[in-house]
Amino acid sequence: MKKLINDVENVVLDSLHGLELAHGDLVRVDYENRVVLRKDAPKQGKVGLVSGGGSGHEPMHGGFVGMGMLDAACPGEVFTSPVPDQMMAADEAVNGGAGVLHIVKNYTGDVMNFDMAAEMAAAESGVRVESVVVDDDVAVQDSLYTAGRRGVGLTVLMEKIVGAGAEAGRDLDTLVALAKKVNGQGRSMGMALTSCTVPAAGKPTFDLGEDEMEVGIGIHGEPGRERRKLASAREVAEMLVEPILGDLDYTGSPVIAMVNGMGGTPLLELFIMYNEVYRILEKHGVTIARNLVGNYITSLEMAGTSVTLLKADDDLLKLWDAPVLTPGLRWGA
Amino acid sequence: MKKLINDVENVVLDSLHGLELAHGDLVRVDYENRVVLRKDAPKQGKVGLVSGGGSGHEPMHGGFVGMGMLDAACPGEVFTSPVPDQMMAADEAVNGGAGVLHIVKNYTGDVMNFDMAAEMAAAESGVRVESVVVDDDVAVQDSLYTAGRRGVGLTVLMEKIVGAGAEAGRDLDTLVALAKKVNGQGRSMGMALTSCTVPAAGKPTFDLGEDEMEVGIGIHGEPGRERRKLASAREVAEMLVEPILGDLDYTGSPVIAMVNGMGGTPLLELFIMYNEVYRILEKHGVTIARNLVGNYITSLEMAGTSVTLLKADDDLLKLWDAPVLTPGLRWGA
Repeated sequence: MKKLINDVENVVLDSLHGLELAHGDLVRVDYENRVVLRKDAPKQGKVGLVSGGGSGHEPMHGGFVGMGMLDAACPGEVFTSPVPDQMMAADEAVNGGAGVLHIVKNYTGDVMNFDMAAEMAAAESGVRVESVVVDDDVAVQDSLYTAGRRGVGLTVLMEKIVGAGAEAGRDLDTLVALAKKVNGQGRSMGMALTSCTVPAAGKPTFDLGEDEMEVGIGIHGEPGRERRKLASAREVAEMLVEPILGDLDYTGSPVIAMVNGMGGTPLLELFIMYNEVYRILEKHGVTIARNLVGNYITSLEMAGTSVTLLKADDDLLKLWDAPVLTPGLRWGA
Repeated sequence: MKKLINDVENVVLDSLHGLELAHGDLVRVDYENRVVLRKDAPKQGKVGLVSGGGSGHEPMHGGFVGMGMLDAACPGEVFTSPVPDQMMAADEAVNGGAGVLHIVKNYTGDVMNFDMAAEMAAAESGVRVESVVVDDDVAVQDSLYTAGRRGVGLTVLMEKIVGAGAEAGRDLDTLVALAKKVNGQGRSMGMALTSCTVPAAGKPTFDLGEDEMEVGIGIHGEPGRERRKLASAREVAEMLVEPILGDLDYTGSPVIAMVNGMGGTPLLELFIMYNEVYRILEKHGVTIARNLVGNYITSLEMAGTSVTLLKADDDLLKLWDAPVLTPGLRWGA
């Protein structure tokens, strides 16, 4: 296993120390409860936005804590759900009196633990906590780790947009509706050229032949739709975009498009992918209004890419363009 | 070869199309001359800043074109120097009457071609062109591709700082002195856990055993100082930081520190590395005033990291903090 780590037990902790040392102007880490907090949390009168999930997807979620995005992120061990105690500590730390919203990727452990935390926080401190589940992955209907679709790339876009809404002072009910709207209007699909190695496991999660790729992969190396022979960037883009367009009617609205790297794919290739995605959408009459190209929701060192398309309207674009200042995403601030 | 590309011949061209489509608000591409230009170039009265080199190091250099950084970047084929005609076209496109400064990484082909371009541009259009060479790599004295030290990570910091100086209206002579000062005060060293594959070659540049790493690697997979057994992040940090501190006296000044990923190393690990680098510097009494942690100067999909330390003073910090708005680096704007 070739990794820049010290010992397998401290991978997440060591990385949190580095995150806080590098971005101490934006975030602080509560090591006892294992929560990444916005430096100035809680913000009185603002809805607190909390997300989290297994580590190994950096910059998500800890890298998206800061002005205009999350108030707290709960990192689990690599590819392992965080626990309810972490989430409850996060809820209490970010509660500014206007309630808390959980953004939860649809994985069974995450959903169960975030639900339990919401109940505990409400019971213990009277915080009102709502949850919205992201389930944007069109690749599979159910998976090894989920009932229903998995929550993948759309989570990044939702955290940005709902974060901007919270920053603008929108109330909890309005933000729940906004998050559900984003979830209803966004879809994703991903693929992998290589597997990845969870540090504690010490060997690749799955085996892929030298001439093979996995299409419809999740973000934990769980199986996808199908294993295929290697193909060109153009063909791969079609394999990802066409199922998305087949699942939701994207005509008539501009889209926010993300071409995401899974961690081990160079930016050189991600721009090649973006070019292909753009051309396919153009053929379908779909216009990209905003884009993200880079590593935003990763699977450790996996080589591969995912595409996320979100139907946007004026309100979503305004929220997208609002200033954001986090370790992983920053503009206009 | 597992890559998201179409055909080997069009890797750079396809990627430039993607860059321009994704960041058309900041840059435009002159496809005939193969130059990435700042959208609003030339800026009258401003020194034009031009860099370039082989592709495969993204986001450098094309991703650093924009407000507060480069005016133009000349991408060669993967790991291959751009040609003088490209550079001359860039010089002429960014000339706003105040002259042009080339920032050149110390590789024999780059240095020769940028020199030739400077002479051609001066002869053909009367543009005054100066060049500054970056040679910050403490790993080797000479290498396969260089006489003298290689130019590596410091290039990113120089493009930011000198770019801010140019944006602030400093003249060509002042910027040449500034660039030389940065070069004198900055050092880097890198290592690789894996090789990378140049698309046109189709196979890894070198072989590394499952239990081996290459310390002192360059950014093209050229040999480093020594091949060693795998070690912990802490030990790797020492192998990179100690030679830098041994080469230049860093006491008494704050530093700008970059922990850079070579392309295939996840951010989770880069933050672990940053934590270790921070602790080592702390022990030596060296304070990090600013930092960058992420993929800024890469070697395709190589797994590995490099450390760059730049001694800073008030002027360098002011230029570092100045707004920058490019595809690969943005803050305060």
